[in-house]
Amino acid sequence: MCRWIAYRGETTALEHYVTEPAHSLITQSIQALESTASVNGDGFGLGWYGSHPEPGLYREIRPAWSDENLRYLCRHLHSHLFFAHVRAATGTAITRPNCHPFACGRWLFMHNGFVGSWSRLRRKVEALIPDELYPARVGTTDSEAIFLAMMGAGIETPVAAAEKTLARLTDFVNATEPGDRFRFTAALSNGRDLYAFRYAVNDKANTLYYRESENGIVIVSEPLDSDHKNWVTVPESHVVVALAGERARVVPLFHRHQEAAE
Amino acid sequence: MCRWIAYRGETTALEHYVTEPAHSLITQSIQALESTASVNGDGFGLGWYGSHPEPGLYREIRPAWSDENLRYLCRHLHSHLFFAHVRAATGTAITRPNCHPFACGRWLFMHNGFVGSWSRLRRKVEALIPDELYPARVGTTDSEAIFLAMMGAGIETPVAAAEKTLARLTDFVNATEPGDRFRFTAALSNGRDLYAFRYAVNDKANTLYYRESENGIVIVSEPLDSDHKNWVTVPESHVVVALAGERARVVPLFHRHQEAAE
Amino acid sequence: MCRWIAYRGETTALEHYVTEPAHSLITQSIQALESTASVNGDGFGLGWYGSHPEPGLYREIRPAWSDENLRYLCRHLHSHLFFAHVRAATGTAITRPNCHPFACGRWLFMHNGFVGSWSRLRRKVEALIPDELYPARVGTTDSEAIFLAMMGAGIETPVAAAEKTLARLTDFVNATEPGDRFRFTAALSNGRDLYAFRYAVNDKANTLYYRESENGIVIVSEPLDSDHKNWVTVPESHVVVALAGERARVVPLFHRHQEAAE
Amino acid sequence: MCRWIAYRGETTALEHYVTEPAHSLITQSIQALESTASVNGDGFGLGWYGSHPEPGLYREIRPAWSDENLRYLCRHLHSHLFFAHVRAATGTAITRPNCHPFACGRWLFMHNGFVGSWSRLRRKVEALIPDELYPARVGTTDSEAIFLAMMGAGIETPVAAAEKTLARLTDFVNATEPGDRFRFTAALSNGRDLYAFRYAVNDKANTLYYRESENGIVIVSEPLDSDHKNWVTVPESHVVVALAGERARVVPLFHRHQEAAE
Repeated sequence: MCRWIAYRGETTALEHYVTEPAHSLITQSIQALESTASVNGDGFGLGWYGSHPEPGLYREIRPAWSDENLRYLCRHLHSHLFFAHVRAATGTAITRPNCHPFACGRWLFMHNGFVGSWSRLRRKVEALIPDELYPARVGTTDSEAIFLAMMGAGIETPVAAAEKTLARLTDFVNATEPGDRFRFTAALSNGRDLYAFRYAVNDKANTLYYRESENGIVIVSEPLDSDHKNWVTVPESHVVVALAGERARVVPLFHRHQEAAE
Repeated sequence: MCRWIAYRGETTALEHYVTEPAHSLITQSIQALESTASVNGDGFGLGWYGSHPEPGLYREIRPAWSDENLRYLCRHLHSHLFFAHVRAATGTAITRPNCHPFACGRWLFMHNGFVGSWSRLRRKVEALIPDELYPARVGTTDSEAIFLAMMGAGIETPVAAAEKTLARLTDFVNATEPGDRFRFTAALSNGRDLYAFRYAVNDKANTLYYRESENGIVIVSEPLDSDHKNWVTVPESHVVVALAGERARVVPLFHRHQEAAE
Repeated sequence: MCRWIAYRGETTALEHYVTEPAHSLITQSIQALESTASVNGDGFGLGWYGSHPEPGLYREIRPAWSDENLRYLCRHLHSHLFFAHVRAATGTAITRPNCHPFACGRWLFMHNGFVGSWSRLRRKVEALIPDELYPARVGTTDSEAIFLAMMGAGIETPVAAAEKTLARLTDFVNATEPGDRFRFTAALSNGRDLYAFRYAVNDKANTLYYRESENGIVIVSEPLDSDHKNWVTVPESHVVVALAGERARVVPLFHRHQEAAE
Repeated sequence: MCRWIAYRGETTALEHYVTEPAHSLITQSIQALESTASVNGDGFGLGWYGSHPEPGLYREIRPAWSDENLRYLCRHLHSHLFFAHVRAATGTAITRPNCHPFACGRWLFMHNGFVGSWSRLRRKVEALIPDELYPARVGTTDSEAIFLAMMGAGIETPVAAAEKTLARLTDFVNATEPGDRFRFTAALSNGRDLYAFRYAVNDKANTLYYRESENGIVIVSEPLDSDHKNWVTVPESHVVVALAGERARVVPLFHRHQEAAE
């Protein structure tokens, strides 16, 4: 389990969201409140968009709370769209390539959740990654594999690509007896649009909230302050779609498929 | 604040004390029960005596709970006298030289506590280190400085050296207004004899326990299991003296000085 | 490319082979003489057998030359059979799981070489790993994949398992146009017997030497001293077989297959 | 010994100077040409000025050549004045606080050189640091101590502060018999003005070059390309003074003192 934050809005220093709030992501790294793991000390990462066509990444295996580089970078990096993530590993190694966010071309992805029997389902999930993207598989997490599977499932229509991939994963865990658990609370962006998913199979989904103003939107695993009324809870099996220049919409997952089936 | 364990007895694999117990030191690294810091994730260290005249050290800045090297070493290293420590930093950098234990010649030392205004008192404490030992000052912690001061105060009579050094520290913190706090719960060994101190000024001392059998003695910050009646609480201002071939004695600190004054 | 050393013989401190010789492995980490990479600073590792049924591992991503833990461990660890390795990465990430040696059950393996177009051939090689061993695939190197493929090819007859795996790899690289290069200079052990392979396809094999006395055998990428007449050069396409209690034999690879074909 | 680069000019991505040139600093980290240490793999650092009143820092103990974070940061960080440094340690620990550059308030400093008998002279040099700056002494290098001594010697007139500090150091090394060596090739900035010193006592000074155009000035340990005629060699005992809005001047050190003595 992990904690993360995604921001899109006016260009700002990352510190205003990552290190400064009362219950900032850094505070959550040592004491999260709504996670099964209160300590998220198995590495962390930043991903951000700037003037370069591809996003920047800073990932480190040390806990976020003691990384002095992170404080300097959050103070000096300015971005209109960034991700930050603190990790509580669920079985895979503590390495930089296993830290979130993951980048592929213009796309950034980060995840909080797990695939129940990862060591048993891993080969099936990795097989969803197309050959041409397999060199981008530089780590060993379920999260990175799912991201690359989504990339290969037609990422230019992100919700459809996610639904297609989640449907495959759902089949995989339901094919076991009893059905493995699968939790997927994730953020995805191409540098303009921002998507955040809340989904689970055979289990309760991890929490997901957002707060929107005219200055932008911030989407989080748990609120950055104790003023909970500022935060909108995203329902299970829904996706937050925050397209560039539009207000965010919360859309049910698999809705169109259900419609199509009706 | 930190958590530690010291063992002397029959030669054994370190894992029986460091990684295997229900509330092992590794468990304490992510969830200590009797510490002001429940997370001790700012590095860790092992120190042990073997056939070489000087002790071995393994220190690392990652949290103990996720270090696969630590598990292998605790399984493979056998020793009759070893220290293990998980760190919760109190202001100094997360570096290997700032991780405990510290070694100097045949001596090993580790500490749980702090000097209240370290940045203000640091120069005074460092001035207690004799010139010939100053090259051994490879880190920046209060703990290492106190250890080297003790080394310079006549370490061959360890309790007297500790009392002499603690008296100086006590003077330092009492010279401030209001008096700075000082907590010192520490272990010291020459490879044969084992000493453990519990002391504080202007504050409550950190917890210290031990358990002794015919196979050996284990001294800890907090018990390794929930069976508290197995563990003897060391009173404040006392030192556990476990000389080679003798049963441990718990001796008041500054006792002889008080006697001399009577 | 990398540098490594394997030892089997009288139980000894690792330091006599890893850190002390004039041209020790640590010296080779910063200035190798017979490698295309003179700097082998992309991590290192130790693997050793002791009283525990499974070997110990110490792997680290820092360069070997500056790791103080390594010096302590080489001084304090004693073993009758150990591996040490310094890494020069050829494309995969600098992580602990990508450092050599690799362990699986009682077996240890380390490697110096590469698979020419690893990103292109990776899926084929990973497919050689049986499902039950795939959870042991914790890194992303070609070396670990080949080791696990060998484990799955009947490791109880190690030379045959290696030949079977090398034949598959040879087919893979020869199926490309022009044929990819493949270099494989590796050590393998079960804690009793020691094997060292020197092989290449479409390229010159990396160097391999050994030195044997009544006290034991040491097999190396390049000699530990300048007295080259002490060292026997292993020919290409040969394997050093050092069975417990016997003198080492140098045996041609694929010999029996050739015999069978005659 | 180390290698470094300092830039002041039009705001630019760091990559154009740190990672892209034919003989970039990253290339120098694994194969420097004009240094006694050809490998500078003992950590590295970036320091840069942006919109925040204090400079940013990114320091890491891994070699620069394999740090993927460094590549992302050099691509995404833009600055009008930045420092980059790769380290070859000369006796002090490989820790982040011992990596260059060092920051104190608005000032940045980095160094290539050493104090001959650092363990013997360390206390004398540390005594030059005023009490109020001693909390900024977070590492153990000679370089950081000299920087903080310069800060305390009146950093608002940087050349005079450097001369004052270098004079003290010169006295220290000349008081030993035979005189210890002291090499000091360093860069200093307040975010507007840039200074680079080349000095040595009882030894040859480390190399120092610069290249200036209308777009800015870059000062280096060794040229970034093989076109040496582009680069001006800074003579020993001189300082490059590049004030904001002016062309750089190369000024002899201790000149005014000599004048005053005439």
